[in-house]
Amino acid sequence: MTTDDTAAIPDFAFTVLATDGSLATDGGPSARATSGGRLGRLTTAHGEIDTPAFMPVGTAATVKAMRPESVAATGAQIVLGNTYHLMLRPGAERVARLGGLRAFMAWPGPVLTDSGGFQVMSLAQLRRMDEDGVTFQSHIDGSRHRLTPERSVEIQHLLGATITMAFDECTPYPATEEQAAASMRLSMRWAERCRAAFVERPGHALFGIVQGGVYPDLRRESVAALTSIGFHGYAIGGLAVGEPHDEMLAMLEHTTPLLPGDRPRYLMGVGRPQDIIAAVLRGVDMFDCVMPTRSGRTAQAFTRRGTVNLRNARHAEDPRPLDEGCSCPCCRGHSRAYLHHLIRAGEILGPMLLTWHNLQYYQDLMRGLRGAIAEGRLAAFAADTLAGYEAGDVEPV
Amino acid sequence: MTTDDTAAIPDFAFTVLATDGSLATDGGPSARATSGGRLGRLTTAHGEIDTPAFMPVGTAATVKAMRPESVAATGAQIVLGNTYHLMLRPGAERVARLGGLRAFMAWPGPVLTDSGGFQVMSLAQLRRMDEDGVTFQSHIDGSRHRLTPERSVEIQHLLGATITMAFDECTPYPATEEQAAASMRLSMRWAERCRAAFVERPGHALFGIVQGGVYPDLRRESVAALTSIGFHGYAIGGLAVGEPHDEMLAMLEHTTPLLPGDRPRYLMGVGRPQDIIAAVLRGVDMFDCVMPTRSGRTAQAFTRRGTVNLRNARHAEDPRPLDEGCSCPCCRGHSRAYLHHLIRAGEILGPMLLTWHNLQYYQDLMRGLRGAIAEGRLAAFAADTLAGYEAGDVEPV
Repeated sequence: MTTDDTAAIPDFAFTVLATDGSLATDGGPSARATSGGRLGRLTTAHGEIDTPAFMPVGTAATVKAMRPESVAATGAQIVLGNTYHLMLRPGAERVARLGGLRAFMAWPGPVLTDSGGFQVMSLAQLRRMDEDGVTFQSHIDGSRHRLTPERSVEIQHLLGATITMAFDECTPYPATEEQAAASMRLSMRWAERCRAAFVERPGHALFGIVQGGVYPDLRRESVAALTSIGFHGYAIGGLAVGEPHDEMLAMLEHTTPLLPGDRPRYLMGVGRPQDIIAAVLRGVDMFDCVMPTRSGRTAQAFTRRGTVNLRNARHAEDPRPLDEGCSCPCCRGHSRAYLHHLIRAGEILGPMLLTWHNLQYYQDLMRGLRGAIAEGRLAAFAADTLAGYEAGDVEPV
Repeated sequence: MTTDDTAAIPDFAFTVLATDGSLATDGGPSARATSGGRLGRLTTAHGEIDTPAFMPVGTAATVKAMRPESVAATGAQIVLGNTYHLMLRPGAERVARLGGLRAFMAWPGPVLTDSGGFQVMSLAQLRRMDEDGVTFQSHIDGSRHRLTPERSVEIQHLLGATITMAFDECTPYPATEEQAAASMRLSMRWAERCRAAFVERPGHALFGIVQGGVYPDLRRESVAALTSIGFHGYAIGGLAVGEPHDEMLAMLEHTTPLLPGDRPRYLMGVGRPQDIIAAVLRGVDMFDCVMPTRSGRTAQAFTRRGTVNLRNARHAEDPRPLDEGCSCPCCRGHSRAYLHHLIRAGEILGPMLLTWHNLQYYQDLMRGLRGAIAEGRLAAFAADTLAGYEAGDVEPV
């Protein structure tokens, strides 16, 4: 690439366009408006991302059951890829030879890759962790592999990630304060090595990950360590791993105000619509979760009236769309009765349509949140959305 | 429906627009140009169909792994539904209450439904056949059901079929002449009952099915029986059921000239691209087969260079499209390497993309055949297409 080409690529940037500090209305554990909702925009080498943003998960170089054009049609501006899965199959070097993950999966927009750390702990066999990294066996074929901070960053570079995540250990829940401290401090030493290994390129970013379990002092220490290293953005890890909802919210309220206001904040692996709303009220900008895609493959739909299980016999002759308020092809073109039939018959089109709808629901939610922040009515939007969600499904026909 | 509404629906009609009698060039068993290729158009209550036409199979009210918009995008103008599957799940009366099969599956164009006879014989359990019909147990839940000519026609009416197929017994192969005769004569008695049971509606059709195994005299007797009853179109059944290719072609060459020239001819369950080309050369107008969709779910693709198995390791780093000559989203947007990865990883997107491609290939083939007939170059088109198909896949990278 010539210098002229490089010059055309914008620097990675995050701009806060509006804030809305109204927090206390969502029934969270505290009324302290530590950090309200933020409307923002991420500028990257591969396109812009409006925040708060939800990133569909494309684990193995595909958002399951969706063509990339369809993912884009829902309004998604960035997708997530998994270092762990891709290093095992088809292999990071192979993806690099094929032009990187974006070309490989035909997703022209930005891609965020996780570091592999979380999946090594949840999926791989015979893990052995040491100060330098982790050795493990593939859950696919038992082959041996090693991940270190340097190798994780290298893999993400080979994948061509727009946003690279620091390699860390996701502290499990529950953990004693001592365990959480040791785990967090290891992650901080790894974060420094990731920063050193990361190759700066215009429009590309490296995010650090705050750990510390449910211990406020450890979270504070982790933020201090990361900000002193300096990252393009900051993720909050180790939440939504089994702790009570209130504990998650308390940790968020504690942590987000500590983070630099001019950098994006990403709450990893979250979550349910109500969790996302609560986190946006607390100043989070980015989210990812398998929930909309995974639920789409198990007959579970997210709607403006809460979750709906299409396998349920009540839908068998229901001619209405899944969600009256949704404009996705599933809701525009098909009845609940048809979706129910597809699921009962084990037809692939069932997961295809429900996945599309669920991703559309999540993107509509994010669009709604962004609009509400822009217009200073975030509290009302959150209350209305949660009220509709909790009202439950429409009456049977 | 008022009389005025009815008046707006066109009568079912078939028009032969061009013929191309050149037969001898495809290496078939005979050079007798008994009935060359025909370019035609079917007019129905639900839209027009250009022939020769390939009808994708939508067994359980879905062309597997395809949204209906995508099926239409390949150029398909009619899809097939299965009476056997739909009567068992979700049930014909339920489909009727939901507006018929076309509304239920969101396919606005014409639909042809088979009679259920073939699937009862191939899928159902504990079949018991008598003069009146057949009793069987569902392969899904073991429930008992009965199909008669009258009930099959009634179900197809409930489904709202544009084209209803007569209920028959598909004579198995091999069968003695005596067995084939008894089976065919039963089907002819049933055909008469189907004709009596069929409710005429503007733009709707009932097709009779020629049986008789591989016995020319029986085929002749069957055609005579059906044409004396009188149908809107004629299907050729009991072929592509295991008999040698040459025997199928010989039966076609024998049978199509016996059929009325002004009525559409439908070769049921056929087939491979080379079979379709051979049958078009022998005057067949309509086809259906699960091959493009089923193969799409088992990593097998149809291309201008023959069949390609994407599971094969030779594709692992091949950046080229599956079929250079194809304009489908699979070939425009994705590499062989990516398709190979999706299949190895068991990702739903693999079957989605390969099914789309295969259906596009079949529709492109039909479009090519129609264009060639219109321009009087069917023999050359058939020879070129078969030569490319037999040349085999492109060299590995």
